Amino acid sequence: MSYAYFKSHSHNKEAVFELFFRKSPFESGFTVSTGLTSAIDFLNQFRFGDDDIAFLAGLLGIDNNPLFSRDFLEYLLNMEFSLDVDAVPEGSVVFPYEPMMRVKGNLIQCQLLETALLNIFNYQTLIATKAARIKHACGDKPLLEFGLRRAHGIDGSLSATRAAYIGGIDATSNVLAAKLFGVPCRGTMAHSFIMSFDTELAAFQAYAQAMPNNCIFLVDTYDTISGVKHAIEVGKWLKEKQHKLYGIRLDSGDLAYLSIEARKLLDEAGLEETIIFASNDLDEHIISSLNSQGAQVGAWISGTKLITAYDQPALNGVYKLTAVKSPGKDWQYKLKLSEQAAKTSLPGIHQVRRFLSAKGEFIADAIFNESDAPQSACTIVDPLDMTRRKIIPAGTKYRDLLVPIYRSGKFVYKIPALIETKEYAQKELSKFHPTIKRFLNPHQYPVGLDLKLHELKTDLTLKQRGLS
Amino acid sequence: MSYAYFKSHSHNKEAVFELFFRKSPFESGFTVSTGLTSAIDFLNQFRFGDDDIAFLAGLLGIDNNPLFSRDFLEYLLNMEFSLDVDAVPEGSVVFPYEPMMRVKGNLIQCQLLETALLNIFNYQTLIATKAARIKHACGDKPLLEFGLRRAHGIDGSLSATRAAYIGGIDATSNVLAAKLFGVPCRGTMAHSFIMSFDTELAAFQAYAQAMPNNCIFLVDTYDTISGVKHAIEVGKWLKEKQHKLYGIRLDSGDLAYLSIEARKLLDEAGLEETIIFASNDLDEHIISSLNSQGAQVGAWISGTKLITAYDQPALNGVYKLTAVKSPGKDWQYKLKLSEQAAKTSLPGIHQVRRFLSAKGEFIADAIFNESDAPQSACTIVDPLDMTRRKIIPAGTKYRDLLVPIYRSGKFVYKIPALIETKEYAQKELSKFHPTIKRFLNPHQYPVGLDLKLHELKTDLTLKQRGLS
Repeated sequence: MSYAYFKSHSHNKEAVFELFFRKSPFESGFTVSTGLTSAIDFLNQFRFGDDDIAFLAGLLGIDNNPLFSRDFLEYLLNMEFSLDVDAVPEGSVVFPYEPMMRVKGNLIQCQLLETALLNIFNYQTLIATKAARIKHACGDKPLLEFGLRRAHGIDGSLSATRAAYIGGIDATSNVLAAKLFGVPCRGTMAHSFIMSFDTELAAFQAYAQAMPNNCIFLVDTYDTISGVKHAIEVGKWLKEKQHKLYGIRLDSGDLAYLSIEARKLLDEAGLEETIIFASNDLDEHIISSLNSQGAQVGAWISGTKLITAYDQPALNGVYKLTAVKSPGKDWQYKLKLSEQAAKTSLPGIHQVRRFLSAKGEFIADAIFNESDAPQSACTIVDPLDMTRRKIIPAGTKYRDLLVPIYRSGKFVYKIPALIETKEYAQKELSKFHPTIKRFLNPHQYPVGLDLKLHELKTDLTLKQRGLS
Repeated sequence: MSYAYFKSHSHNKEAVFELFFRKSPFESGFTVSTGLTSAIDFLNQFRFGDDDIAFLAGLLGIDNNPLFSRDFLEYLLNMEFSLDVDAVPEGSVVFPYEPMMRVKGNLIQCQLLETALLNIFNYQTLIATKAARIKHACGDKPLLEFGLRRAHGIDGSLSATRAAYIGGIDATSNVLAAKLFGVPCRGTMAHSFIMSFDTELAAFQAYAQAMPNNCIFLVDTYDTISGVKHAIEVGKWLKEKQHKLYGIRLDSGDLAYLSIEARKLLDEAGLEETIIFASNDLDEHIISSLNSQGAQVGAWISGTKLITAYDQPALNGVYKLTAVKSPGKDWQYKLKLSEQAAKTSLPGIHQVRRFLSAKGEFIADAIFNESDAPQSACTIVDPLDMTRRKIIPAGTKYRDLLVPIYRSGKFVYKIPALIETKEYAQKELSKFHPTIKRFLNPHQYPVGLDLKLHELKTDLTLKQRGLS
């Protein structure tokens, strides 16, 4: 594409592309935008190296001739990042059609970024959202992420652990993520630890002697209830020595039944402070179900289901051209049609306005063309049903979500510390009506097109279809 | 765990761990083991750096005291990789319970590798298997992988593209994977390319002028049939100029109907050689269905469904302790019990023997203890139903699957070129009865425990349960 732009002199055009999704993952009532920090890392290093150019120069077309001409490869080699980039701060809560990132400037540069930006935002946003949902099911109990062994590659885990921390996990078993990002790390033990000793009791004793204040015993290697009894035996010994048994971990079987039985046994032995950790393919639905059955779990562990977003392992985010400008001309707003109304794209250069109640609760979002911002009362139109509208009175407080990240290629943003991003995400989530977090049929937070944008989209659609 | 091993002087023990899965992904009749090359890259670099040790030294326990003692951290810092590692060659076809890798030696080293090895093998094996299935649905038509934008991180895509190439894809849109691994790269165009021009026709013309022999026009930006007609107009112009329109790409709508209509229009215009590419969330099931409807597709593109293994995004591979040895003592074979028979692990130090018919077709596999290899006729016992047995006559030809990769930490293997691994995988797959590739209720290739291993497992299980 870039080569055809170059050869047809379209590389002097400017463009606007917006990155957004059309449907929240997991039928969720909210989505946590994550990926901006990785995107910045990528953009800060964006350039073609000599080895890249050498590789591209060697690529052959279907006719076995070199695919690209020398002048194009030199153009790439000399390319310097020069775009305007705006994005919602990492950890922001977003909804369908709202741009998470907007990229503006040289058409070829904008186009070249498409796949990398989608890769970064799609996955990290998916995992932050999944983590927020699982954490919501945990209530005030901690949530630990133990997914590395099932993640999609090393980076699949690293970037996901970071995203999951923003979304809601309290700690991870991924020590490298702890080292690189400062996510708290926690671990327990594997069955192999128990099996490497002659008996389960000997294994627990060895562990307790090494780390008397940091024991979380895995109790299901041979039989869960007898495992709990061995843990209690060591727990009593720890207590005598002025330590305490921190936890036990259930990793198989009926977690509702076993946690209740284990709690009884622990309490009867005077080990009321010992926490029951539970794991085994847990997600928000299983945790909710276990909680409703009265499971006595003090800390939840999620691995595979969290790190792979098992029930929907891809966010279908897209990166669409919304405007184009030839040298010396005005911006032309662009629209992609589709048989499905949901897939018709929004023309223009957009911003998102989030309106707040007097108490500071979020009440509705309007997507509008930046050059045509709502001035007084704002009418927002449902993008899929133009008869559903909501009027936001003039003078309503608001915040515009997209903030400048680059201007003409210069980085103009300050990346918050990871812990601040996590706190921001959690605080933002708390400002919506809590029913958006419901798992089944969540409340639909109102998001619509500003009336003028709606009218522009309608006009362009009719024109494109030859109907006006 | 390592710290507790160290403190209890268990670090002088030796261990054997085996990496295997209990169930093929996607209800598949076969699984393509992939990940060995990445695992070797990892093992060749395995050591603790000063920065790692500094990080670990700063970790605090629940009691806010340092978690690890100085002598342990020095032990880690001075650790040199010293294990024996055996593995099945990359691209081998494997089945449940068969070790893909076997690790033997210092207990702590074996344990430390668990999560990284699982991360590598689980994901890459999953994707190679998915790719092999999708390629099987494509028959003799090419399969292109276009998944980067939905993959789980950059590495999630890179390692997956490599694995998918072994499994069966013919090319990828991931240019970095092409550069790093030599996977052939192919691309088409995005809707943005069309939209950046005033008309679809102008966009196709610009592309054709830049790359007259390499055009694959995306025809559904506004309306598929009129897009095909614009492509034909440019195709005829290309033909006049002694070029040819290489392909068109359908990316939405009813691919069966549209491909048949598009084929008619192309043929009527004398563009019989133009290939119809199809994409849009395709996997083996949709491709099979489209083929059965007579879709006129000449090349298939799979993205999200392939790169995320959408219908089962994790292979549940595990890494289990199978034997342990104290200094000066014999090997003790180890077993993890479970309420579920399928989850009880195999004790011993195993090898896998694949038997061949006189014609060179694979007929059955036996898992056996290496120290107790079948000598004459071999009776194999189904691991989940001990009454299902198969007798392999004495003198049957065989090949043992696990081959040495490291001996006492020394690398003793030669990694084949990627293309050789791909060819090996495809050739191996062809030696099984084709019914193992069926999507619905595939033929179950016979894999069992050698009778002596079965008896050992039974004895240890009864003993562990206090029943003998």
